[in-house]
Amino acid sequence: MLFRDNIERMTGYVPGEQTLDHSYIKLNTNENPYPPSPAVSTVLSDPEALRLNRYPDPIADTVRDAAAAVTGTEREWIIVGNGGDDLLTIAMRAFVNQGGRVAFFDPSYSLYPVLADIQGAVSVAVPLADEFDLPHDVQDRIDGADLLFVTRPNAPSGNAFAIDRLAEIVTGFAGVVLIDEAYTDFAADNCLDLVKRLPGLIILRTLSKGYSLAGIRLGYAVADPQLVEGMMKVKDSYNVNGITQRLAAAALQDQTHMAANVDRICVTRQRTTDALAAMGFQVLPSQANFIFTRPPLPAARFAQDLRDNGILVRHFSDGRVKDYVRVSIGTDEEMDAFLNVTEKIVAGG
Amino acid sequence: MLFRDNIERMTGYVPGEQTLDHSYIKLNTNENPYPPSPAVSTVLSDPEALRLNRYPDPIADTVRDAAAAVTGTEREWIIVGNGGDDLLTIAMRAFVNQGGRVAFFDPSYSLYPVLADIQGAVSVAVPLADEFDLPHDVQDRIDGADLLFVTRPNAPSGNAFAIDRLAEIVTGFAGVVLIDEAYTDFAADNCLDLVKRLPGLIILRTLSKGYSLAGIRLGYAVADPQLVEGMMKVKDSYNVNGITQRLAAAALQDQTHMAANVDRICVTRQRTTDALAAMGFQVLPSQANFIFTRPPLPAARFAQDLRDNGILVRHFSDGRVKDYVRVSIGTDEEMDAFLNVTEKIVAGG
Repeated sequence: MLFRDNIERMTGYVPGEQTLDHSYIKLNTNENPYPPSPAVSTVLSDPEALRLNRYPDPIADTVRDAAAAVTGTEREWIIVGNGGDDLLTIAMRAFVNQGGRVAFFDPSYSLYPVLADIQGAVSVAVPLADEFDLPHDVQDRIDGADLLFVTRPNAPSGNAFAIDRLAEIVTGFAGVVLIDEAYTDFAADNCLDLVKRLPGLIILRTLSKGYSLAGIRLGYAVADPQLVEGMMKVKDSYNVNGITQRLAAAALQDQTHMAANVDRICVTRQRTTDALAAMGFQVLPSQANFIFTRPPLPAARFAQDLRDNGILVRHFSDGRVKDYVRVSIGTDEEMDAFLNVTEKIVAGG
Repeated sequence: MLFRDNIERMTGYVPGEQTLDHSYIKLNTNENPYPPSPAVSTVLSDPEALRLNRYPDPIADTVRDAAAAVTGTEREWIIVGNGGDDLLTIAMRAFVNQGGRVAFFDPSYSLYPVLADIQGAVSVAVPLADEFDLPHDVQDRIDGADLLFVTRPNAPSGNAFAIDRLAEIVTGFAGVVLIDEAYTDFAADNCLDLVKRLPGLIILRTLSKGYSLAGIRLGYAVADPQLVEGMMKVKDSYNVNGITQRLAAAALQDQTHMAANVDRICVTRQRTTDALAAMGFQVLPSQANFIFTRPPLPAARFAQDLRDNGILVRHFSDGRVKDYVRVSIGTDEEMDAFLNVTEKIVAGG
């Protein structure tokens, strides 16, 4: 047996389908339907200036500076990753031994247990309470874990846990807490204020959602400089490529463009929520760029009917989420098409 | 203590200096001085077609197909990484438990022991024989290791181990062997033929050297489909960004451009070798895009004198390599400048 036992036994992560058939309306992986900042085109327009034959800055200081400006911190508080997922892996490898324990909520980002499997660590899945809120016994359940992953706003449920509760949890926990704020640009508030007063806390951000740049793979984490310094030892030496560094710095410096797209998406999210509710769907209040909704027909069938009509959404077949579908918020035109098809499916069902 | 013990104790990898001061002649990190294929500019000229708001193909099939064509294999034999380093980490995590053993030769790529530290594994450094060739007792020394890293051509020494010896070593070894062929485009031969008949073997390639694309971070590995399948479970789900995938496929399809640059570099390598030898340097025969040379003055002082004259080379301060410097092959103009300055340093010493 050449592979480690944990690798041999495990099932790999299954990402949402990335179809090459661009005729589909793609509402299945929480991408931003609008183009990124025009600064992106400017950067790409001068290939020679990108110096692609040269290695990039190993620690991506221009991105760190731009992220520090956005988060009101300093460069030393920022570590940059090849997408947020890279930083999840770095945290896993920095803080959790093989045989150690990794806690996360269920349902949440389905990558967490896969990362635990890869590390050979034990997954501690803490079931969320009703309406996918934090349960009362979090402290007891995570006791003894080395690392706790929290997604806020949560995926796939879309709700945002109370910040006060999270602060309590971090304070009472002996390990490291990573709050994954991938969807925070679409939320009413965030946990950034906590990071300055709770040294065991890491806040994770990404350019994949708010900044329309899922294709460039750029995430960053904000944490106490001592945590950043240790995580730097674990990352690949050149983990973020040179083009991504240039594009990310430019995109972070264009907050106006990001905020305008986010505003449009939040308006469309409300309109979609209302329209689905009127058709008999249960729609959870969302603070993200997707909605999690329980259709008035079997969810797997609804997802399949949508696909047959050229629309992709995400359906998870396991446990208590199997009655829901997760629908990313597309453009207004895309959501009109989604609502029209949905109306026909519901009428026919 | 929040960090794992192995992380707390370890020193991070120190990459060669990537200065932002472009006035230096940069011969310190084995980059290709010539621009990549013009196909790169073509890809970048249409930012909308890059669909940067969308996630990339998780397994980079267009790159796999292009790499399969170059290596005479099929897509199933290829796994793509965020630079070769990503694939070294993937191999480490796939095959070596915490507390397991990783073997490599000394001197060789100085990242290997750092990767072992991150995994919490034991480093088995096998000293190379005279002239940095394979020692006679390799089999005994690597016995019990889970993974063996071989760099061929080796860095920093530049020589290429005998392929027959490597085949013997792979055959007699119970673990996995990864032959890192980062520099193989500049060598007389390669180990690709071995991979079809030795199922525990992985061949690693990169676009950073021959293809002039260190900035985009693209490596790929060729291995038996069963090894590829298992390693796929360990990689980050979206480990290679969308722009890099497009650029890499285009560059791999332009073998003519790569081969022409490689030819120029090999001619310059010979000329530089001859000129240094004439000045009293010991120069090891190189099959890579750098030379490893022992100057007729203390190597650290030579490197510092070069830096004072605006030229960066790499000096490693440890063990038996401390009397050498590693000089990447630049353009003819850059090497003329290097040789002129060197002549003055030697004359003044």
